[in-house]
Order: sequence, then structure tokens, then C-alpha cells
Amino acid sequence: MDTIYLDNNATTMVDPQVVDAMTPYFSQYYGNPSSMHDFGGKVSLKLKEAREQVKEFFGASLASEIIFTASGSESANMAIRGVLEANKKQKHIITTKIEHPCVLNVYKTLEKEGYRVTYLSVDSDGSLDFQELEDSVCDDTVLVSIMYANNETGIIFPVEKLAEIVKRKNPKTKFFVDAVQAAGKIKLDVKNTKIDLMGISGHKIHAPKGVGALYIKKGTIVMPLVIGGHQERGKRAGTENVPYIIGLGKACELANAALNDEETRVKRLRDKLESGIIKSIPNARLNAAVDERVPNTTNIGFQYIEGELILLHMSDAGICASSGSACTSGSLEPSHVLRAMGVPFTALHGSIRFSLSRFTTEKEIDYVLEKLPQIIRKLNNLSPFQKELKALGAI
Amino acid sequence: MDTIYLDNNATTMVDPQVVDAMTPYFSQYYGNPSSMHDFGGKVSLKLKEAREQVKEFFGASLASEIIFTASGSESANMAIRGVLEANKKQKHIITTKIEHPCVLNVYKTLEKEGYRVTYLSVDSDGSLDFQELEDSVCDDTVLVSIMYANNETGIIFPVEKLAEIVKRKNPKTKFFVDAVQAAGKIKLDVKNTKIDLMGISGHKIHAPKGVGALYIKKGTIVMPLVIGGHQERGKRAGTENVPYIIGLGKACELANAALNDEETRVKRLRDKLESGIIKSIPNARLNAAVDERVPNTTNIGFQYIEGELILLHMSDAGICASSGSACTSGSLEPSHVLRAMGVPFTALHGSIRFSLSRFTTEKEIDYVLEKLPQIIRKLNNLSPFQKELKALGAI
Repeated sequence: MDTIYLDNNATTMVDPQVVDAMTPYFSQYYGNPSSMHDFGGKVSLKLKEAREQVKEFFGASLASEIIFTASGSESANMAIRGVLEANKKQKHIITTKIEHPCVLNVYKTLEKEGYRVTYLSVDSDGSLDFQELEDSVCDDTVLVSIMYANNETGIIFPVEKLAEIVKRKNPKTKFFVDAVQAAGKIKLDVKNTKIDLMGISGHKIHAPKGVGALYIKKGTIVMPLVIGGHQERGKRAGTENVPYIIGLGKACELANAALNDEETRVKRLRDKLESGIIKSIPNARLNAAVDERVPNTTNIGFQYIEGELILLHMSDAGICASSGSACTSGSLEPSHVLRAMGVPFTALHGSIRFSLSRFTTEKEIDYVLEKLPQIIRKLNNLSPFQKELKALGAI
Repeated sequence: MDTIYLDNNATTMVDPQVVDAMTPYFSQYYGNPSSMHDFGGKVSLKLKEAREQVKEFFGASLASEIIFTASGSESANMAIRGVLEANKKQKHIITTKIEHPCVLNVYKTLEKEGYRVTYLSVDSDGSLDFQELEDSVCDDTVLVSIMYANNETGIIFPVEKLAEIVKRKNPKTKFFVDAVQAAGKIKLDVKNTKIDLMGISGHKIHAPKGVGALYIKKGTIVMPLVIGGHQERGKRAGTENVPYIIGLGKACELANAALNDEETRVKRLRDKLESGIIKSIPNARLNAAVDERVPNTTNIGFQYIEGELILLHMSDAGICASSGSACTSGSLEPSHVLRAMGVPFTALHGSIRFSLSRFTTEKEIDYVLEKLPQIIRKLNNLSPFQKELKALGAI
């Protein structure tokens, strides 16, 4: 059996159609889109097409609202730093405790630079308290930054509603949405919302690693992170990554076309995996048992077992999954997301995220449902918590 | 006849061997190098190999001195901003009048933020005055930033010697070299120099657009531009652009192997093109007639004719070249580089850069030498400067 890849929230396979779209732009149409000659001009037209595709994906009004970046991290850094640089007097920021580490680390750095940051808490369902958000917004609030879907649990935040709460309290506050994990799983539609900025990453939607995009609503002033040439309307210098931008355009088109498959077939496979594990493994416990989740993600805690051990044994069986985000892997700290939700300590260290994609098959899910109980049984027998596992009926 | 591409200082064709090296990492080995599973771990090992290749290319001592970026512009922004952020008390910077626009624009922005910037001038040969440099360095000088080879003229600066002058005067001043246009044309060898930082861009050495690298000498503190995950040893967040990093590694290996070809065959073709044009076109004038030039570049002024017109006619004949840098194309300002060198006004607007590569053939040069005189003759006859052109014997 080949690798069974259930780690699509960490990164995805590049869709072969995306590779096909990019390939001619490496060695055949390689002109610089800024060049005066036709050879570059043709490439420039193709970039325009890709920008339209990405605009459609965001549900934005104008192609000029889309900036191409090199990653979801760069999109977030550019949105956050860019808004702060353009509004230097206000020093208060609101975000949540369960943002992606790449976003949280920006705020930790900003705190050292004199910003006050409010980290909103979540309840055991991973939900935000709307009142806490509203109460936190003040005159000095320059930015509110809330993710669309959480990378570890898949929980979806009602960002459109949250943006309205913020704007009602302070219309000048900018609202940034990290949509990296929502993109390609639920329909984005920024047009008629109060959202000012939204970032995505290519490699979470079957485009390559190393490309992202940032939606900046017309009229929102954002200072550039990379200064230099006139590219991206002066907002991001550097010769355009032509192949990847074309690839991202194609990936966006394919992702929108596949949304129905995500919501039906992928969701059914996710639910089958989830209920199958819970049913057959006595010490398994569903983290984030709520409906408002992206259809491809489930997060399951295996009580009294070490997550790293589960991952290694799954890896040996050819199954890829993860604990927490890849960006923090290697650290032995348990997930900040699950801790914020109050997941009990007994399950915290043994929590595993399974994330499917449109390339996941029923056969693969069946294989995992066959192998995983064997792995957990073996690890249960090695666990130092024999008494507790016995009480759960796990051994 | 196919496109004759003599615009390799703007961007290059991706070497098919580079494409071959990257391809498996899109849809086959697509794991996240930070993941816990073997599928990601294998990718991580391959990145290590690429970092070694790029280290060799720079002639650096340690692979940990190499940071991967998304462009030459990002490398420069990271080097400059990163050094300033780490040394906030000193406020004086030295650079040259003929840096690439992406670097100059950073300094223009920094001036608005309270930095004093000294722009060193060049003489008609494009050379710097060593004494002017030495006199400019003071206690407050945090950074000296000098390009290795100029993108428009190909003129090479003796950066190793310049770094020594700077460090003798102020050992704490950091020395950054923008080596984007030197890379792949002359051997880089940072190991035994006083250079602290050196940036390159992939797409100038037959890797794709959208990848670059920054050499940071061990012990040099540089604050990150993109904050977030632990990638690049905490110096640049964002999931690694695995295919392009592998591609850049391969491109570096190929570029070093091709240096001899650059110095012999490519140089001979450049010299043939240059002397052929000067000989057959009476109003042609060699800008930067010095020996210390990269072997692939020539810059020729066609007096009393508009450069854009020449480019358009060449484009119609299938020949790609450029005036100035692609990053400033579209602007009608004549080149800041040629102006700084005191190129006469009569030739300034009609200056064209021809830049060859290892893929340039003798047949292509012969075709240009056949077509270009016809184009210039035609444009001479349309020029409003008939008297002046007659005096030159051009019509």
C-alpha cells in the first residue's frame, strides 16, 4: 500500500492539473512580465488571468484587491505589519488564543515593541464569546485578527458576523482574517462583508509551497513588507513568481469546483473515520465535537498515550497525520489550541489531527480503520497508565 | 526563427535540469519537511542537500549561514532591515548611486524614517572612489551596501577590497553585497572575506522566479522580516518552498559548473556582438568600456534615437533586450546608472542592454548583427536629429 496521506492541513499534494498549468512557464514562456518585449508581455497577460481566478476564489470585487505573496505567513505578516505601519498612533490589537503559531508569534513580537494585545479565549467547543470581543474593542484598537477555521480542530469562526461586531464599535479598526485553513474547504465570499484583509496559502489548496495571496479591500492602506520594484502595484517588490501565480490561479479554480465534493464525499469519509475510531477504540475521545467544522478535519485524543508515539507507529504503517501544527512540531509542548479549549490533560498529549483532501479514497479510510486500533492497542499495553486504561475498558 | 533572448539580466530560462530536479516534489514527494512522519522527513533531508549546494555556490563555510528567501528583493530587504532592526542606535548607511532600484528604494524609504544615507558616486568608468568610501564611514555607520556587479552595465565592484576598507575604519559596520547580477557570472567566495551578508536571486541563474538566498556570516545578528514558524532557524517563517529550494540548489551547482563557459564562450559571443555593433553602426557608443565586467553583459547607446523604439522593433524581429532594469520599465526616466556615469544625454535615451547566457548561440548573435543595423538605419531616418546623425556618418 502507498502512503496514506491524512495530513492535508499541514500541506497538500500539488494537483497534477496545477503542475500542467505551471510547467510551460519555467523553460518556455520565461520572460519577465515587466519587460518591454512581447516575450515578457505575454506572460504579463497570463498573470492578469491568474489574478482574476484568485479574485473569484476570494469572492472579491476587484482583481486589484489581490496581492500575491510567498506564503500564508507572509500574507499574515504583510496584513498585520502593513496595517500597523499605516496607523502608527493606535496601539491595541485583538486576536484569539487559538490562532496559528505564525500569527501568534507576530503578536508576541509586537508586544515587545509596545503594542497591547488582547487574546480572546474560547470555550470547550472552541467558540468565541461575542460579548468579550465587543467589550475589547476600543478607540485605540487598530486591528482585530481572527482566523476563519482552526488548523488543528477545523472549527469555523463566524468571521463575517465578528467583523460586523467590531466595525459597529469602531469603524476605523481593521479586520484581518487568516483564511489559510478555510480556503478550499468552505466558500470564501468577502465582497459584501466588513472584512478588510484576508490571507490564504497555496500549498493548503493543492498549489505549491511558496505562494500565497492577500486580499486587501479597496481603500485599505497597507504598507509593504518588501520594498523595491513596482510589482504588485508597489505593494510587494520582487519579480513575480510567474509559474506559482499561474498555479495558484488554477488551484483556486479547481478548489471552487471541488467544494461540493468536500462538503459531501470528503465529509462523509471524515465522519466515517471519526465515528469508526471512536467506536472501535475505547480510549479515543473526539476533540471539538461541533458541527461548525471544515469538512476534512477531525481531531481525536487517545487518552493516556503519547501522540508522538502514535504518529511514529502510523508512519511505519504508511499513514501520515500530525499532532498540532507542523510549524511547531519538534516541540514537546502540547497544543495551545486544545489547551485553550480545556481538553483534559489525559488526552492532550495523545491528540492526533487527521485531515483529508479530495484525493482521499474510501479504501484509504478503511485501511486506517483497520490499522489504527491495532496500533493503539499495542501502545495501550506499553502505557504506564494501566489502571486508568483498564477503567476505560481499553485494555 | 525562434525568440532570441538577450535579456538574461532581467530573467533567465529555467534550466531543464532544474525543472527535472524540482518536478518530483510537486505531486510525488510533497510532504511538509516539518512533519513528524517519514514522508515529510525525506523532504527535509533533500532540503539539507540543497542548502549544501547553495553554501558551496557562495563559497561559505557553513550551510547554516544560508537562508532561503522568495526573491533577490526579499534577500536585500531582509539583509538591510534585519541589520538595522538589530542595531537600532546607529543611523548612518552608505550605498552607491547605481544600486538596483529594489535596493535604492529601501534606502529612500529609510531616509523618511530618519536614517542618513550616503550615496557614493561613480566616475565615467563606473568606478567608486575608495577614498570617498573610507571618508564616509563613521562611528554611526551601521551598514554599507554595495552591489557586486551592476545589472545595467555589468561593471564589477571589488567588494572584497571595499569591505576591508570599511572594516578597517569601523569593525562594527556590517557589509552587505547585492550579488544578484554577479552570481553565475563570476565565482562567489565569501569565506575569507569581510563581507557579512550577500544576496542572490534564483531567476538570474536559471532557477525559477520566486526564490532567492541570503548568506549571513555566522555571528551576524539579523532580525527576521517574516515572523512565525521555526523555519530557516527562526529567521524566516513559512513552509519551505521545497521544489524551488531544490531547484535553486541544482541551479547553483550547474552555474558553478558553467563558469568556465561564461568566461570563455559567452564572453567571446558578447565581445563579438559588442564590437560588431560598434563597427557597423556609426551612432553606436559603448557605455562602460571597462574590462571589469561580467562576461555576459554589454550596454550600448544609440545616439539620437529613442530606446523604447529600438526595443519594440527588435521585439518585432524576435530579439529580446532591455533598457534599464525591468523593475523600472514603463517609466520614461533615463537610467539612473548611466546618468551617474555621466553618459552623454545624446546616448542616454537610446541605451540598450544586451545580456547573454550559457544558452546563447553563435547563430543568434549573427542574426542580431544582421538585423540590428537595419533597425537602427530605419530609426535614424525617422529621428528628428538628422543634422547630428549626418555629422556622425549615421545617415
